[in-house]
Amino acid sequence: MGKISPFAPKHLPHLPPIEGVRMATAAAGIRYPGRVDLLFALFDPGTSVAGALTTSKTASAPVDWCRERLAHGMARALVVNSGNANAFTGRRGREAVKLTAEAAAAAANCLEADVYVASTGVIGEPLDASKIAAKLGDLADQAKPDAYEAAARAIMTTDTFPKLATRKAEIDGVEVTINGIAKGAGMIAPDMATMLAFLFTDAAIEPGALRDCLHPALDESFNAITIDGDTSTSDTLLVFATGRAIARGAPHIAYGEDPRLAAFRIAVAQVMHDLALQVVKDGEGLTKFVTVRVTGAESKEAARTIAKSIANSPLVKTAIAGEDPNWGRIVAAVGKAGERAERDLLAIRLGEILVAKDGEVAPGYSEAQGAAYMKGSEIAITVDVGVGSGAATVWTCDLTKEYIAINADYRS
Amino acid sequence: MGKISPFAPKHLPHLPPIEGVRMATAAAGIRYPGRVDLLFALFDPGTSVAGALTTSKTASAPVDWCRERLAHGMARALVVNSGNANAFTGRRGREAVKLTAEAAAAAANCLEADVYVASTGVIGEPLDASKIAAKLGDLADQAKPDAYEAAARAIMTTDTFPKLATRKAEIDGVEVTINGIAKGAGMIAPDMATMLAFLFTDAAIEPGALRDCLHPALDESFNAITIDGDTSTSDTLLVFATGRAIARGAPHIAYGEDPRLAAFRIAVAQVMHDLALQVVKDGEGLTKFVTVRVTGAESKEAARTIAKSIANSPLVKTAIAGEDPNWGRIVAAVGKAGERAERDLLAIRLGEILVAKDGEVAPGYSEAQGAAYMKGSEIAITVDVGVGSGAATVWTCDLTKEYIAINADYRS
Repeated sequence: MGKISPFAPKHLPHLPPIEGVRMATAAAGIRYPGRVDLLFALFDPGTSVAGALTTSKTASAPVDWCRERLAHGMARALVVNSGNANAFTGRRGREAVKLTAEAAAAAANCLEADVYVASTGVIGEPLDASKIAAKLGDLADQAKPDAYEAAARAIMTTDTFPKLATRKAEIDGVEVTINGIAKGAGMIAPDMATMLAFLFTDAAIEPGALRDCLHPALDESFNAITIDGDTSTSDTLLVFATGRAIARGAPHIAYGEDPRLAAFRIAVAQVMHDLALQVVKDGEGLTKFVTVRVTGAESKEAARTIAKSIANSPLVKTAIAGEDPNWGRIVAAVGKAGERAERDLLAIRLGEILVAKDGEVAPGYSEAQGAAYMKGSEIAITVDVGVGSGAATVWTCDLTKEYIAINADYRS
Repeated sequence: MGKISPFAPKHLPHLPPIEGVRMATAAAGIRYPGRVDLLFALFDPGTSVAGALTTSKTASAPVDWCRERLAHGMARALVVNSGNANAFTGRRGREAVKLTAEAAAAAANCLEADVYVASTGVIGEPLDASKIAAKLGDLADQAKPDAYEAAARAIMTTDTFPKLATRKAEIDGVEVTINGIAKGAGMIAPDMATMLAFLFTDAAIEPGALRDCLHPALDESFNAITIDGDTSTSDTLLVFATGRAIARGAPHIAYGEDPRLAAFRIAVAQVMHDLALQVVKDGEGLTKFVTVRVTGAESKEAARTIAKSIANSPLVKTAIAGEDPNWGRIVAAVGKAGERAERDLLAIRLGEILVAKDGEVAPGYSEAQGAAYMKGSEIAITVDVGVGSGAATVWTCDLTKEYIAINADYRS
């Protein structure tokens, strides 16, 4: 593991207990002996679940399992292991998930169909699920409500800090809590693939309505970050709602359009946004945190495509690493995105500095200004492409020699 | 400029003169004083031209100029400068092209509409075309038929060797020659953006037929290579056919489907393929030359998309740099391509070594085998995705710390 990210938080947030959620962690010896690599979370009966899973066509066995279970929408247990992604493991991979779910169902005294499974780590190596199964009974006994930091640490792979976030929101005047944990973004962490994020709340929301809260927030969180453009076989986001706030007078929400969800939706979006930015801030080898904002595009989707083209350009990312205000590379990245852009109206800002406008370098812009700005640790690139009103923001980091060192030398 | 590519040819090929083509080069002081940075090529009356230009939405002024002229299809002169791409230069950029074309037309005694212009170098800085215009008269006087190596050198930017290729072909029993020169691929060379390639032949082929020879060959040459996935504002490929072979009995070809073009088509494709691979072999900081072959895809296009996803994956490219047979990253790159792939039928080979089949690591494969293979300087990755009969090959190179060094430190 490399040195800790310069953007690691000084203090970890404390996540309060959520009624109906208990957790425990263990060292199951999945890849490294003695490393805590297993999380078991148990949920009270009546817990609903919604989620978003990788779009990869070579999705892992646990992702396939979760996709089938999500249609059903109820959950009693979550098993997460690090060290092995159980991806590209064929029939044996499916058997490993099945064995894990059987053991979890026995330990949690629930149906297999109510068990969710996520794995992160090496791709292509068979996962010995008996190591997991052997631990779940004890973990069920030990599970307690205030174990979020331990849980966030158990799912880390090459992450250099645990990722935690929490918010409160009122639903019809009753306060509910939303806790979230996450680990390393997409394929930042190569063999140790995967972005995983889990949210927990005591709100009482049916699966379809929960899904409606989750999906719009993806665009401003996990779908708006990129480290290296690689997509994992295992990306998994799950939200569990125990409904236990009903005992304190919270309503049972059946429909996503229910206006009483307004504050809850925002809080969910904030937790996801917070976690997503923490994931970027732990990007491998990063020295700069970068916000790319595109305005004036034909649509929001077009703006996002252009912003991602900029954020994924190795040339833009290496220029940022080199503190070079190389806006020509930004122009080229806009051009290759394939979306409409009016070259002769294009405007580019670095922070507040107007670098280019009307398809030319801006009058009065000096390279010295740009170079001074690039020395900061947080870089904002804003591009107006001059054709419409679509806008989007994407967050990323720079591409450094350290990234290459980590990824070229990783398994050797 | 870094050290010379380990894949630079030991000996440059000698390109024979082609009747109807004359060239000269000069140091015009466009970016660096004393550096040869200007090529002027003159063609006999009756020369036809076809081409392919960048799909970038922020294409340079010279690209826009060429796109308009190609509809017309006749050429008398080509002006190429390095040091400044004349891209994102707005109205002044268009004026610079116009001034260049006027001066070239005067020097070549032709119409402005018969002049083609290409520029490569820094993006966003105004190009002082008067420096070019001042040289063209003398260059027209000096132009001679055997200046291909000098021409290939004049268009270099961060290229570490000049790129030259030549082939002969018979059209209806009469031998014709095809010469080609090229420079650095796509955005390998950041500020010094751009892949440029120019082919010259004495065959007598009308513009539409010439275009029909050119375009199918793109898929196996310039459209099948990638260094870092970035697309330049300025990519330009032009083929000039002087028709002077008619004096030796060659036919005048009007239609692309003419069967007498069979050997010529192949020779054009070979010159383009040869040049394109030279471009990859001069990728910035490369230590490995990589061939990615995808078979069993739904279509040729799907195969190409998957191959590019593998070839552009920073994680695959850094693994190759680290000599790590990390096939899990290949699986992930297949998955993120978004094309149909049958995970449980996927097969991966490194060279001749079967690494994975039927969605699992292959029986008998050992990491030691893979690691030994990865020590070679030419790496072949073959992936069968198990859904159809579409196949495609893409060529690329590894991603090294040297690439980051070149691109992060370039302008500082």
